[in-house]
Amino acid sequence: MTQEIHGTVADGFEAVREEFAAVVAAEPPDHESQLCAYVHGRRVVDLWTGDGADACSLYGVHSATKGAALLVVALLVQEGTLELDRRVTYYWPEFAAEGKGGLTLRELLAHRAGVIGTDTGFTTAELADDRVVAERLADQRPYWRPGTAFGYHALVLGALAGEVVRRATGRTLQEVYEERVRSPHRLDVHLGLPAPLDHRFRPVRPMVRTPVQRVAPVSPPDGPHSLAAIAFNRNAARPTDLATLPNEPAVRSRGPASVGGVASARGLAGLYAAAIGEREGRAPLLKPDTVAEFGQFHSVGYDLVVRTHRSYGLGFQATADTWHPFLGAGALGHSGAGGCQAFADPFSGLAYGYTRRRCAYPGGAAPENQRLVAAVHASALGS
Amino acid sequence: MTQEIHGTVADGFEAVREEFAAVVAAEPPDHESQLCAYVHGRRVVDLWTGDGADACSLYGVHSATKGAALLVVALLVQEGTLELDRRVTYYWPEFAAEGKGGLTLRELLAHRAGVIGTDTGFTTAELADDRVVAERLADQRPYWRPGTAFGYHALVLGALAGEVVRRATGRTLQEVYEERVRSPHRLDVHLGLPAPLDHRFRPVRPMVRTPVQRVAPVSPPDGPHSLAAIAFNRNAARPTDLATLPNEPAVRSRGPASVGGVASARGLAGLYAAAIGEREGRAPLLKPDTVAEFGQFHSVGYDLVVRTHRSYGLGFQATADTWHPFLGAGALGHSGAGGCQAFADPFSGLAYGYTRRRCAYPGGAAPENQRLVAAVHASALGS
Amino acid sequence: MTQEIHGTVADGFEAVREEFAAVVAAEPPDHESQLCAYVHGRRVVDLWTGDGADACSLYGVHSATKGAALLVVALLVQEGTLELDRRVTYYWPEFAAEGKGGLTLRELLAHRAGVIGTDTGFTTAELADDRVVAERLADQRPYWRPGTAFGYHALVLGALAGEVVRRATGRTLQEVYEERVRSPHRLDVHLGLPAPLDHRFRPVRPMVRTPVQRVAPVSPPDGPHSLAAIAFNRNAARPTDLATLPNEPAVRSRGPASVGGVASARGLAGLYAAAIGEREGRAPLLKPDTVAEFGQFHSVGYDLVVRTHRSYGLGFQATADTWHPFLGAGALGHSGAGGCQAFADPFSGLAYGYTRRRCAYPGGAAPENQRLVAAVHASALGS
Repeated sequence: MTQEIHGTVADGFEAVREEFAAVVAAEPPDHESQLCAYVHGRRVVDLWTGDGADACSLYGVHSATKGAALLVVALLVQEGTLELDRRVTYYWPEFAAEGKGGLTLRELLAHRAGVIGTDTGFTTAELADDRVVAERLADQRPYWRPGTAFGYHALVLGALAGEVVRRATGRTLQEVYEERVRSPHRLDVHLGLPAPLDHRFRPVRPMVRTPVQRVAPVSPPDGPHSLAAIAFNRNAARPTDLATLPNEPAVRSRGPASVGGVASARGLAGLYAAAIGEREGRAPLLKPDTVAEFGQFHSVGYDLVVRTHRSYGLGFQATADTWHPFLGAGALGHSGAGGCQAFADPFSGLAYGYTRRRCAYPGGAAPENQRLVAAVHASALGS
Repeated sequence: MTQEIHGTVADGFEAVREEFAAVVAAEPPDHESQLCAYVHGRRVVDLWTGDGADACSLYGVHSATKGAALLVVALLVQEGTLELDRRVTYYWPEFAAEGKGGLTLRELLAHRAGVIGTDTGFTTAELADDRVVAERLADQRPYWRPGTAFGYHALVLGALAGEVVRRATGRTLQEVYEERVRSPHRLDVHLGLPAPLDHRFRPVRPMVRTPVQRVAPVSPPDGPHSLAAIAFNRNAARPTDLATLPNEPAVRSRGPASVGGVASARGLAGLYAAAIGEREGRAPLLKPDTVAEFGQFHSVGYDLVVRTHRSYGLGFQATADTWHPFLGAGALGHSGAGGCQAFADPFSGLAYGYTRRRCAYPGGAAPENQRLVAAVHASALGS
Repeated sequence: MTQEIHGTVADGFEAVREEFAAVVAAEPPDHESQLCAYVHGRRVVDLWTGDGADACSLYGVHSATKGAALLVVALLVQEGTLELDRRVTYYWPEFAAEGKGGLTLRELLAHRAGVIGTDTGFTTAELADDRVVAERLADQRPYWRPGTAFGYHALVLGALAGEVVRRATGRTLQEVYEERVRSPHRLDVHLGLPAPLDHRFRPVRPMVRTPVQRVAPVSPPDGPHSLAAIAFNRNAARPTDLATLPNEPAVRSRGPASVGGVASARGLAGLYAAAIGEREGRAPLLKPDTVAEFGQFHSVGYDLVVRTHRSYGLGFQATADTWHPFLGAGALGHSGAGGCQAFADPFSGLAYGYTRRRCAYPGGAAPENQRLVAAVHASALGS
């Protein structure tokens, strides 16, 4: 019995619906996912599937949260509240400890700070609170020479950026986000989910692996104090299960800016659509210059945490280089560990959001995004 | 029926003639190519094949053109007219736009500027005119942070360098090249082919792929606004066919310094021989120090355009690292998209030039160069 | 007939003995090797095998020598005699020649100087004398822009560091090492083996390859003037056989600081144990801050000499990234061409030393280290 596909696509995007249906048909019967896309501010794809799910269902989006957090930083840079080439210590003097005094905000955003975690790890309660995380990181010796190399600050980039925001504005990144981005643009991407909306949250389901996948190693055989372990808090006394982190009420309600966000595909696509262009009658959040600067390649090469090639703009993943080479240069976005993907491609005017409930194998943007993004992009170019 | 091999080799280079013949025998019957090599200023290999071709036939050499252009820059640096560690804006103030003000000439030459093309592409007429290209690039926002990463400036490196030359000397790069390099050294490498010589030009023939090659992707599946597309002008309203660009009379007659040159193998090998040593009684164009500095590795790692590992000196390809690891460190040269290859290896005193008429699969230095360079190098060491 | 395994392991490290025995059983009958490990200053593994060998046998350890040399530098940095961010020329003015004046000591240690050898190579007598090597390198033009890239300074890093030490202290690196490290800590790692101990030296046996290994290329087909050839002195009139270099009495007795050391596994493990913690009642040689700084990643990416990905701290190999990803971030050590391996993992308090007499295929840390380090590490975590 095939699973039902809900929602609509605009004329010219019928192929996307077919591709989405094909993806769903290949998944187990309890599959639950959402796909949404905008082209130049117009919603052209709005699909979902899953028993009990609808377009307003909210999912843990893990690191796609960083996209919302970075949008706040971009806004503040655009209006002059933050300056990229200032040292981090201009805003946050305590960050100077252990040889980090020379690092600029630009370098910090580009995953070059080297404080990917701490020697002893975090409790889950600590990870829920960006301010506590930032305080701990300020004291930490960086794991590489700040600025000279880069690695994915998986669980902490949002806390680092957030502390800079807080010092510069007197308000948390989450507060600025709510007031300036989420609320006025009515976006279902929450950095801190209000209790009245919690019933829309669909708890993350853990990855299910086939027998073959169970044998294949998901990650490199790194130890409990490797850079990867530190970055993913596997060096903590009680290691974090990143996959199910959004299921923790304390995490979900506070919305730590690295991995604590909760969103729908509509929300993710809407966020990027609102960032780069007019949407529902509201002016773009970012000017083209700001979008270009945040999407500009800043860190390119060997990622010391992921241990392979990566490319980042100012915190955003360089989505075209890392995931979808047919996209335009300057595409900027962020995927999440559970399988979601979200980005804007300024050249084609495309904004894309994809969520799924069960964590995808092998972690990171789910493989089906390759097909879905290609279908959306092809229809967008033809539209 | 085997194709005839013309020309001569010096004593001790008989194996090169055999290797050349073996290469030709494996090609289709309409194959047309030239091979020339110097060792310490003495021509030791001078071979060609092809119906209607001779040693004076001229071919489109695509990016091997850059070798001639960079030689001009090296000359001007050597005599103090240009200084590598000056900012580009010292010579060319308009280049400061969009955050490029800090870039040095050294970084520009090392493919670090980040203006690999423009958001909207070029017409073929524009591409033929380095001055127009330079004007457009001055206004362009770089695609990565200038200086911090690098990528192959495939169609524009010559225009960027050329504009610096023009501002510093009042003359175009092509004019300086003609007066100081080509004419006195009687080299058949033309940046702007004079009409009286046009009858020697043999139009480029497009690549012919086997059925298997036709299925295999030639390039990554990048989109019309990817970095690779921008760098190769595939984002233009009418995308450039780089392979047959030299067949355009406007391109051939102006000789844009990135890809518009027309040459014979004798010319290419002679150019590099003249650069590094005495040749036909004339003093070397460059001092050993200049050769060493231009061949010194400046950009090493992931090339954002080519999307793989590359190494460059000051604009020149680090031929030993990228193509022929048995060559000496400091070998400097440049291949062309149609399959030609040209370089100097200062350690062994070898200068090499290879041209072919039909574009080679899969693009870039043709595979047969591996065998030919190895044979020439082995004979040179034994000689 | 299985080979006898000698020595002891502490309770909880029985699995290491089994693994060592399994490794030995897979080797030819003349196999000779030693394995030693400390955890938090306590010797927990002390094994050896081989006819005529014992725990005090001494082997040529090739580049593992660099670990001892770098420990001297770290000591002098710790006490303020050397400053990492000073230019090398502050200590050694002649080093400024050929564009090296801007290089800092930090960059020099991180394999960024670019003087990996000389255009004409060294005699073996020269290689035995760090001061002669340093003098030659001071005059050499670097093979890449100093500081901007990196490559393994295989045969010369110790001479470069040693000259800085000599200029700053008036004493050779070898003298400082003997007085401050080797003698007080009674370590069998000798930079210059005294004649009375020479009877304990077991000459290196050359690599023996299987028929399959004989066909597979051991190294890339690089030429006599490639960067790799220069770095390994294969460009010399009489190329160095690195493998058997320690068999030369002049090398062994002078102990050049890059590759001339002679050691036992007890010595190597003891050296790293003494560096990071208390051992046999003596205070640690280095403070945790110094260990962390020298183990901090400084050069990450494409190594121009080795032609693949590498990671280095301040001269030390980043052992976790390059060899054993299950180790802690900040693990620092150095393997040797003949197959030995040695490192400290500050997080787990582990110090490891392994020697073998016959050069291992294919060169560098011998493959069996993968199994042995994993076994030691697992037992250490469980202990």
